[in-house]
Amino acid sequence: MENLVTAFQQYIKDKNLFPAKAELFIAVSGGIDSVVLCHVCSLAGYDFTMLHCNFTLRGEDSDKDALFVKELGKKLGVPVITKRFDTTAHAAAHKLSIQVAARELRYNWFKAIMEENKTAAGTYLLTAHHKDDDVETMLMNFFKGTGMAGLKGIPQKQDNIVRPLLFATKKDLLAHAAAYNLSWVEDSSNAEVKYTRNYFRNMVLPLVKEKYAAAEENLYHNVQRFKEAEMLYRQAMAVHKKKLLKEKGAEIHIPVLALRHAEPLSTIVYEIAKPYHFTAAQTGDILSLLDAATGKYVQSSTHRILRNRNWLIISPLQTTQDVHLVIDGEGEYAFADRVLHIAEQLKPVDITGADKNSAYINGKLLHYPLLLRRWKPGDYFYPLGMRKKKKLARFFIDQKVPAGDKEKIWVLEMNKQIVWVVGHRIDDRFKVTDTTAAMIALKVV
Amino acid sequence: MENLVTAFQQYIKDKNLFPAKAELFIAVSGGIDSVVLCHVCSLAGYDFTMLHCNFTLRGEDSDKDALFVKELGKKLGVPVITKRFDTTAHAAAHKLSIQVAARELRYNWFKAIMEENKTAAGTYLLTAHHKDDDVETMLMNFFKGTGMAGLKGIPQKQDNIVRPLLFATKKDLLAHAAAYNLSWVEDSSNAEVKYTRNYFRNMVLPLVKEKYAAAEENLYHNVQRFKEAEMLYRQAMAVHKKKLLKEKGAEIHIPVLALRHAEPLSTIVYEIAKPYHFTAAQTGDILSLLDAATGKYVQSSTHRILRNRNWLIISPLQTTQDVHLVIDGEGEYAFADRVLHIAEQLKPVDITGADKNSAYINGKLLHYPLLLRRWKPGDYFYPLGMRKKKKLARFFIDQKVPAGDKEKIWVLEMNKQIVWVVGHRIDDRFKVTDTTAAMIALKVV
Repeated sequence: MENLVTAFQQYIKDKNLFPAKAELFIAVSGGIDSVVLCHVCSLAGYDFTMLHCNFTLRGEDSDKDALFVKELGKKLGVPVITKRFDTTAHAAAHKLSIQVAARELRYNWFKAIMEENKTAAGTYLLTAHHKDDDVETMLMNFFKGTGMAGLKGIPQKQDNIVRPLLFATKKDLLAHAAAYNLSWVEDSSNAEVKYTRNYFRNMVLPLVKEKYAAAEENLYHNVQRFKEAEMLYRQAMAVHKKKLLKEKGAEIHIPVLALRHAEPLSTIVYEIAKPYHFTAAQTGDILSLLDAATGKYVQSSTHRILRNRNWLIISPLQTTQDVHLVIDGEGEYAFADRVLHIAEQLKPVDITGADKNSAYINGKLLHYPLLLRRWKPGDYFYPLGMRKKKKLARFFIDQKVPAGDKEKIWVLEMNKQIVWVVGHRIDDRFKVTDTTAAMIALKVV
Repeated sequence: MENLVTAFQQYIKDKNLFPAKAELFIAVSGGIDSVVLCHVCSLAGYDFTMLHCNFTLRGEDSDKDALFVKELGKKLGVPVITKRFDTTAHAAAHKLSIQVAARELRYNWFKAIMEENKTAAGTYLLTAHHKDDDVETMLMNFFKGTGMAGLKGIPQKQDNIVRPLLFATKKDLLAHAAAYNLSWVEDSSNAEVKYTRNYFRNMVLPLVKEKYAAAEENLYHNVQRFKEAEMLYRQAMAVHKKKLLKEKGAEIHIPVLALRHAEPLSTIVYEIAKPYHFTAAQTGDILSLLDAATGKYVQSSTHRILRNRNWLIISPLQTTQDVHLVIDGEGEYAFADRVLHIAEQLKPVDITGADKNSAYINGKLLHYPLLLRRWKPGDYFYPLGMRKKKKLARFFIDQKVPAGDKEKIWVLEMNKQIVWVVGHRIDDRFKVTDTTAAMIALKVV
């Protein structure tokens, strides 16, 4: 690299990392990467504030590092904010590993500082990740099997966290430090992550280079290519999603026929389901919904994907009282864990033996659309055999329905009149009479 | 794998590899992979013909392999075609490595057989590549830095070559061979490729697995994911190309303004240029054309990308006599290695000292569009100062233009009248007179 500062400024401009007048903070451990970042920022003429976390994990050494960072700030003529954390106590209190505890403390502190210092031109946190970090992350993700998302490595910009040294290799940073005679501390935090990184760098990579001498250089190129490839991947997915997904309130509806023709099917299904916490391993199950009957579903920790006639429906698991299902004709309709079958019944049938989950309705009186929904306080109907209306709440008491079961009761209504208290009783107004020619058969299974 | 045959049939159906009535050929070395493929095809009830290449590289052993394949055909009750090649002689005659020679011979023979056996239902060559081959190819490409295209590994279908065992691991094939007590020969051809594959399998992968125990399983998943990711990548690229590229005869025109806003820019430029034999390393040069002056260009072995005003123009290097450049107004126009500047000249200038590469034309007589093209036999004009028309061929002889230079001469014409023999003389009909108010200044640099 000819000149790290020029390349640094070009990179910030090319990638549009932050505007010229932004308020800048730099996360500084005191290690070579963050020292070089501060130095280059200073040479490039940026104003910035240094932030240092003292995790107090290495006693005196931790304090020495904090002191070193303060001294660096003085030399560069920029403000330094340091903060002491009792990382061990925090880890114990929240049952976290030291590493996770440190990350949480650091992240929360940075976030609070960004919040406090919001400006019109934007407030940014700069971290000193470089190309070698990026390549190692990509390499590890490749073997961890994270798919395309993992191959993009470390993002150069993520909300207001930016990494303006991602273009430079560790070698470039070392050369800059040598040229300017910079000093730094050996940062021993985060040792576990570093150990895995170093394993790939010092063990795996040399073995590969014996076969492919240019492997390291190739990985440098790949990491940038994959960042861009992942962008194209997301662009294509956005087109598929726009075509396939129809938002209906809290639900997403997907037409099965169109989905069946989408290519590449597995990845499209995986990407559609991922935001709702379905795992890659569930993709096969979701795919099999394409050939499944109404009522079949696959569940994540938060959502359900339900096959309902010619649709897949993604809905939150907490089905609230607000859910209304529109019944627009004969067929099968999935609701909660059950399926409502609705069909015209032209021939007379013996309806006296019908179980509670079946009902027959006067076809002449029924007009679509119907609404299938949970019952709610205030609902009333004319129970079959009665001339007087009755509140459902009262009806359930009379019927001795256990409290736990009450919540699960649904009603079928037409024009705000209840037709059927599903699984319990039909409304007298819709009953089949001697003169009824066409009946509607209702059944829940 | 429960049952290799069932999975095999499902895979062929899912991936739509070949129709039921297709004519099938199987490339059979006699090694375990191809033996299992034949056996599975037979169990699945397919008719097929076995093809075996005897490269005569291992004397008796080669002949024994050929015999083994013939015996296998008899056992399975299917025809076998074997062919002997003098691989060593072919390699020597064409200055190829043994490996390249063998591949060429095999490929050409297979191609000829496919041609001879064309059927309405399609003719297909089946090869026995399996999932481990696929993963190893992907892994090697990852370190070779082949970008997205390399990550898709081995294609399951490529014209009429299909690989119906790509879903199965080597372990699956071994299990099937053991279950049916199959025998095979140890195929020692293609040893060099196998050596590199084995290096990754037996040296690199175990080292990775010490850190990530599930690495192998993850790679199995990744190889399928990346195949699909590559498909999405190509879908997104097709959208960009459709938006950006305008075909004009043998040329591709790209509006610079639109290209500048395309994202991710580097990859889009790389993918646009790749079919014209530009390398990844030239992407930076092509990108710099976005800020370059008219006339700057980047060249591949077959094509040139030229900055011409607000366009990038990709054209074949062999600029034929057919190239016509439309001049639709003032400005700069690149042609061959030069640039034509054309501008209105309102103030009088001293035109007597103009060099051959500058000319002034009567603005009143000139109407756009003009055409810039190479001169051709049959062209004539009225050389400045003459009342009689003259053939260009004659004019060049009179002017003693060397033969080699003649080819490079261009003319500017309007309504089929030559205005300027570029760099030589203007036409008398378009000359500036005492009464000329507005002139057009022409200049080539």
